[in-house]
Amino acid sequence: MSSLLETELYAQPEALRSFLTTGASAAEAVRDLADGTTGVVIAARGSSDNAARYAQYLVPLVSEREVTLATPSLVTTYGASPDVWGRLVVGVSQSGTSPDIVAVLRDARERGAPTLAVTNDPSSDLAGQADLVLPLRVGEERSVAATGTYTTSLAALAVVAAGLAPEPAAASLLTDLEGTPDLVAEALEADVDDAVEVFAASWRGITVGRGVNLATAHEAALKLTELTGSLVTPFSPADLRHGPIGAVGPATPTLLVAPDEAASASVLDLCPELHDRGAPVVTIGPGLPPTPSLVSPIVAVVPAQKLAWRLALHRGVEVDAPGGLHKITRTE
Amino acid sequence: MSSLLETELYAQPEALRSFLTTGASAAEAVRDLADGTTGVVIAARGSSDNAARYAQYLVPLVSEREVTLATPSLVTTYGASPDVWGRLVVGVSQSGTSPDIVAVLRDARERGAPTLAVTNDPSSDLAGQADLVLPLRVGEERSVAATGTYTTSLAALAVVAAGLAPEPAAASLLTDLEGTPDLVAEALEADVDDAVEVFAASWRGITVGRGVNLATAHEAALKLTELTGSLVTPFSPADLRHGPIGAVGPATPTLLVAPDEAASASVLDLCPELHDRGAPVVTIGPGLPPTPSLVSPIVAVVPAQKLAWRLALHRGVEVDAPGGLHKITRTE
Repeated sequence: MSSLLETELYAQPEALRSFLTTGASAAEAVRDLADGTTGVVIAARGSSDNAARYAQYLVPLVSEREVTLATPSLVTTYGASPDVWGRLVVGVSQSGTSPDIVAVLRDARERGAPTLAVTNDPSSDLAGQADLVLPLRVGEERSVAATGTYTTSLAALAVVAAGLAPEPAAASLLTDLEGTPDLVAEALEADVDDAVEVFAASWRGITVGRGVNLATAHEAALKLTELTGSLVTPFSPADLRHGPIGAVGPATPTLLVAPDEAASASVLDLCPELHDRGAPVVTIGPGLPPTPSLVSPIVAVVPAQKLAWRLALHRGVEVDAPGGLHKITRTE
Repeated sequence: MSSLLETELYAQPEALRSFLTTGASAAEAVRDLADGTTGVVIAARGSSDNAARYAQYLVPLVSEREVTLATPSLVTTYGASPDVWGRLVVGVSQSGTSPDIVAVLRDARERGAPTLAVTNDPSSDLAGQADLVLPLRVGEERSVAATGTYTTSLAALAVVAAGLAPEPAAASLLTDLEGTPDLVAEALEADVDDAVEVFAASWRGITVGRGVNLATAHEAALKLTELTGSLVTPFSPADLRHGPIGAVGPATPTLLVAPDEAASASVLDLCPELHDRGAPVVTIGPGLPPTPSLVSPIVAVVPAQKLAWRLALHRGVEVDAPGGLHKITRTE
């Protein structure tokens, strides 16, 4: 019997396809909603926050608008909140029930900022605080480790970016997105056997990514940590070089996220130094199907998801309840 | 003979005192510079980026202004840049030579945004792009692992926050800052022997912090990783609970950053679960001198710095060249 995780992992092309059927009209709705705003604030946790990291690069790249990642505990812990008037405020939450993300949107509304919810549940509290809802429509996520909601959230944030971008960048991004379901299907065929062997040899590791794929490095580290019991830390090449690389050695399996994309050169530049330190290196990039740069994170994360899942099986982890966890979504 | 690290570690009270002599006048200069702006953008790397995380909470707490952490590779890798018109743009760099941080300020200037440099070198490239310079004046930092420039950068960003805040919050924050040199001196006396033993037992670990002290958790993880060879990952309680905690067990020493502060309760709430998982836990908080909440990160990081230094010595690390590294500051 398949695990929930395996089912959700392999359902990603279909989930993306389903979400993207309304991509162009959603982008238009975002354009109307964001009229007169000057930047974007995104509130999210966990995998959704990693998706927000993608938007942090993508949105300014196509629209010159600045993206701020919200700090939800400002509202819930300190009762404070930044003045977000004039910004488009986006909440990303699969379940739509995280009280702190809901609080950020409620607060933004009170300040008169337009609000947008990216969620799987259009009847959720989060959706209730939003002027516009982008439903992920991937079905109820039942696995502890998010896969399909992550890639679909990336696509949703790319649709938001398209809604903020001028032409022809907007149309070009939407066209790029159309190709992602097939590319993800292809990436799901990736052979991860060698990578599983490399990461199985240690209970710690690192991932490295940059630019739009810094998000991928973060999400890969999160999947590996929550599913396999290894503690895996994500880095940008600059941050790794400035000190942490001193801790890297033969017992530090390293995953480089380097699809064919402008920011990947500086990730690959690390190879000689990692080699000198004896670190076993696995690279996501060479085996990937050719993918447009701006949507590469939707495809590049897939081999990392598969690696985490397969390593978990290899280690005898019950993948639908890794580390004894069950699906939880509430944080105050 | 003392290491450079030890010298810089213990020079922190004096460095803070020296910096703070001009705190009030610097806050006034920031107030003038920021007139008419609606938010803050901060560009930084490594330890300086951790200091920026502090500002991400502190600035909205005292001024309601939103803080955006810049993504410098947008400028240097993609040649793109977000529109920061109407924001105060701050670059934090000890050396003032990081090309990517300099590029963010140059770009901001071209867009007509007021720029501020927090740097140890008032004649640096970074300072050259700034309308206002807050010199750290801690002397040339020679150790690979930043200590005094980190705590002084925290103080500098608190001065910026005071400059943005209304009265009486501004005066209150400046008064809080005045007390930090003595509090840091007291925190330097912290007994870290037990903590060294706990962290010496594993080559991996985690740190947890929230609110203004999420920065402290990040900086503690960075010091431990760059100095000791352990790979230590920082988390917020919410992010840890949502999955990564499944990887925590007896081989995962855990540092909780929980000074007497509103956000610490949810950090300490993790204790029963960490105990059930068998994780050895060390807490920064109980032994600290009573410290005003808003400046607690300046004091709470000190025992973590000391822990990292002492664990490095315990492991025979050459602390001024950990992992074979030498002082480097260039990233493009």
